[in-house]
Amino acid sequence: VRIGILGGGQLARMLVLAGVPLGIQFRVWDPKKDASAGQIAEQLTAEFSDPQAIKQFVSGLDFVTYEWENVPAKLAETIAQEVPAFFPPHSALKIVQDRFTQKEFFKKNKIETADFSAIESLDDLKNATAKMGLPALLKTRTEGYDGKGQVLIRKTSEIEAASKKLFGKKQILEKFISFDRELSLVAVRSKNGQTAFYPLVENLHQEGILRTTLAPAASTKRLQAQAEKVARLLFKELNYVGVLTIEFFQQGSKLLANEIATRVHNSGHWTIDGAETSQFENHLRAGIGAALGSTRVIKPTAMINLIGNLPDQLLSENGIHLHLYGKTPAPGRKLGHINILGKSLKDLQARVKKLRGKLAV
Amino acid sequence: VRIGILGGGQLARMLVLAGVPLGIQFRVWDPKKDASAGQIAEQLTAEFSDPQAIKQFVSGLDFVTYEWENVPAKLAETIAQEVPAFFPPHSALKIVQDRFTQKEFFKKNKIETADFSAIESLDDLKNATAKMGLPALLKTRTEGYDGKGQVLIRKTSEIEAASKKLFGKKQILEKFISFDRELSLVAVRSKNGQTAFYPLVENLHQEGILRTTLAPAASTKRLQAQAEKVARLLFKELNYVGVLTIEFFQQGSKLLANEIATRVHNSGHWTIDGAETSQFENHLRAGIGAALGSTRVIKPTAMINLIGNLPDQLLSENGIHLHLYGKTPAPGRKLGHINILGKSLKDLQARVKKLRGKLAV
Repeated sequence: VRIGILGGGQLARMLVLAGVPLGIQFRVWDPKKDASAGQIAEQLTAEFSDPQAIKQFVSGLDFVTYEWENVPAKLAETIAQEVPAFFPPHSALKIVQDRFTQKEFFKKNKIETADFSAIESLDDLKNATAKMGLPALLKTRTEGYDGKGQVLIRKTSEIEAASKKLFGKKQILEKFISFDRELSLVAVRSKNGQTAFYPLVENLHQEGILRTTLAPAASTKRLQAQAEKVARLLFKELNYVGVLTIEFFQQGSKLLANEIATRVHNSGHWTIDGAETSQFENHLRAGIGAALGSTRVIKPTAMINLIGNLPDQLLSENGIHLHLYGKTPAPGRKLGHINILGKSLKDLQARVKKLRGKLAV
Repeated sequence: VRIGILGGGQLARMLVLAGVPLGIQFRVWDPKKDASAGQIAEQLTAEFSDPQAIKQFVSGLDFVTYEWENVPAKLAETIAQEVPAFFPPHSALKIVQDRFTQKEFFKKNKIETADFSAIESLDDLKNATAKMGLPALLKTRTEGYDGKGQVLIRKTSEIEAASKKLFGKKQILEKFISFDRELSLVAVRSKNGQTAFYPLVENLHQEGILRTTLAPAASTKRLQAQAEKVARLLFKELNYVGVLTIEFFQQGSKLLANEIATRVHNSGHWTIDGAETSQFENHLRAGIGAALGSTRVIKPTAMINLIGNLPDQLLSENGIHLHLYGKTPAPGRKLGHINILGKSLKDLQARVKKLRGKLAV
């Protein structure tokens, strides 16, 4: 089996590491010469806008998947026509690429989410904030990630500056809601219809970037069923194949969908060591129509992202499962993550705190 | 960190898969163009006898390790001088490469083993069999593996044929002993002195090739301490760094050392899914002086080797952790293995039996 991956970052790298033992061969397409996944797989180094490169990329591939949402829609569509199978479906990709289309999709399917409004001018923004109330988040409809491409508007005097900051880009205004926790669900559906769900996990952010995931999240007995219901609905509506991640805000006993990612996700990295089968392996199994692996939790697991620089003591610290991405350190860049397994969530939280101090992560 | 591996077979491949997440870069040296590990790492394709290749191989490497015992002793020695560190020590490699030297080493260190005798002629063989009694195994002193290079002598009339079969090679005669089980211990020592031990596992052979490992072996409470004692002794005597595997024959409450391998071992493949840290990761951690990972068992695990051909249903069968080596099928060739996790050893044994029938492995 030969699979092509659009993008050669850390998600592609971890897909390759999970797929090689299944006998899968990989080709990644990334314009960056030193791409993370290109260090362990065949890499096509060409711009995504290069029309010649498509033929080169798809040649001999049985499947194509992708590791980030911003694959140009046209490119995804063309490739989907050129290979036997493309997953997750490019129709799903098209919906999630645009935050507004995604929210409209939630609304249409009666999936609860925070208020939102499409913004095309300063007047739109003034009207929408008046109607929705503040604080609210103004975001670009496309291409934002890790907190980039968004501005928090706390009071009316900040409206014009916010509008200017994102000027020239299609925007969406989202009501800024208070919530108890951010939870996420990693779900997977195989092309033969089999589904599997990891437990809800709790995500802790700082400066818009995911820092820590605790898996499983505490006290989610009823929430898990709610979350899985949303996933099943999405699977059906999107005719879905592969891993799907849904980020939720929890308000008491209620879950509000924040956003979905039609791919493996940072909040699922704990599964490499903490679950019987990783999200990466299950994404590939789903795509090629193999039986899905068990999503059972081995032990409560904490995932800590390594961002910006790598602490010296990473290899000398006990009890750490290390996952480096082979990337050059740079401020705000995700360079790797560590997974820690604990006896209980409480035990884990204490260890995470201690480790954060020690490693300054 | 850059590590070179002598040999590019499945053991090298699994070392690479375990080491990439630690941020290690690899170069494997294997004369075979389609080497298993070369599919995911830089490969030097040259004969081991090529003196030019050594410089090419060691250039820029911080460490060198190996994946099979038959690295030419002279080559190992030369390389050990050319790189900052070579592990496991080539002095240990030299001892285990020759079955007779290995057994003499056991004897010197008071490690119990079956009777043995060096054989240089037919007369030697006649004398030794008379003294030791039959049945006995006549083996080449070097280069045998997976049951190759050995002949079982059951009665005196078979002596001459056996001698002829291995003619021209240095030989050792070993008493063929009856035993309850074959057990093995995978142990690891870091260059900073830290040690760790996996539990004893039970190995089931057929036609001289390992077919199944059950981990951990049942009822080994006292045997584990005996086995670890032998490992500690070897660590000390060999000034050892890396994974060391010891195969034992169990006779009641006694363990007889059969042979040692100064490398990761087929009977440790279950650790990829069944232990918190795999033997491959711990071998690398040991070599670079990192903290060793936990050797705790996640769940009782059965490892089944896939030999000769690959069953069609491998990917559609539930509950299987698959590890393929990217090798072309051939009779007797190890193409991969599967790990199965079970609630208990008993549960596992039943599943192995069922699966063996279903997959015809």
